[in-house]
Amino acid sequence: MSSTHIFNVEMTCEGCSGAIERILNRLKGQGVEDVSISLPEQKVSVTSTLSSDQLLEAIKKAGKKTTYLGTQ
Amino acid sequence: MSSTHIFNVEMTCEGCSGAIERILNRLKGQGVEDVSISLPEQKVSVTSTLSSDQLLEAIKKAGKKTTYLGTQ
Repeated sequence: MSSTHIFNVEMTCEGCSGAIERILNRLKGQGVEDVSISLPEQKVSVTSTLSSDQLLEAIKKAGKKTTYLGTQ
Repeated sequence: MSSTHIFNVEMTCEGCSGAIERILNRLKGQGVEDVSISLPEQKVSVTSTLSSDQLLEAIKKAGKKTTYLGTQ
């Protein structure tokens, strides 16, 4: 069963949001089904069978301040 | 023996360069000795006992386009 998890990620520009998108897209086929990013809202939504902890760890590799907000 | 390796990294803003800096600073004590980043030049210099391949792999985790330019 997949859930949609929402994260707050500190993204300043489209370079920042593009980097997060690239990292999560690499996990497609490994549990990530859909990724949606709002730069103005500083929000990253990930529909996935992975746990929120696994997703948080993956996003944190980007070097941005990230917090988990909950499921949609 | 440590060397200074230079990488070209696509960084658009200070959020981008800060993310790269954070990732590399996490490796201090694990082989990374010094990190210097020029956003206008799109260059990242890393003084380290790690190989250029190990550093390239670490930087690529940021989700930015990265190429190795050589040692200083």
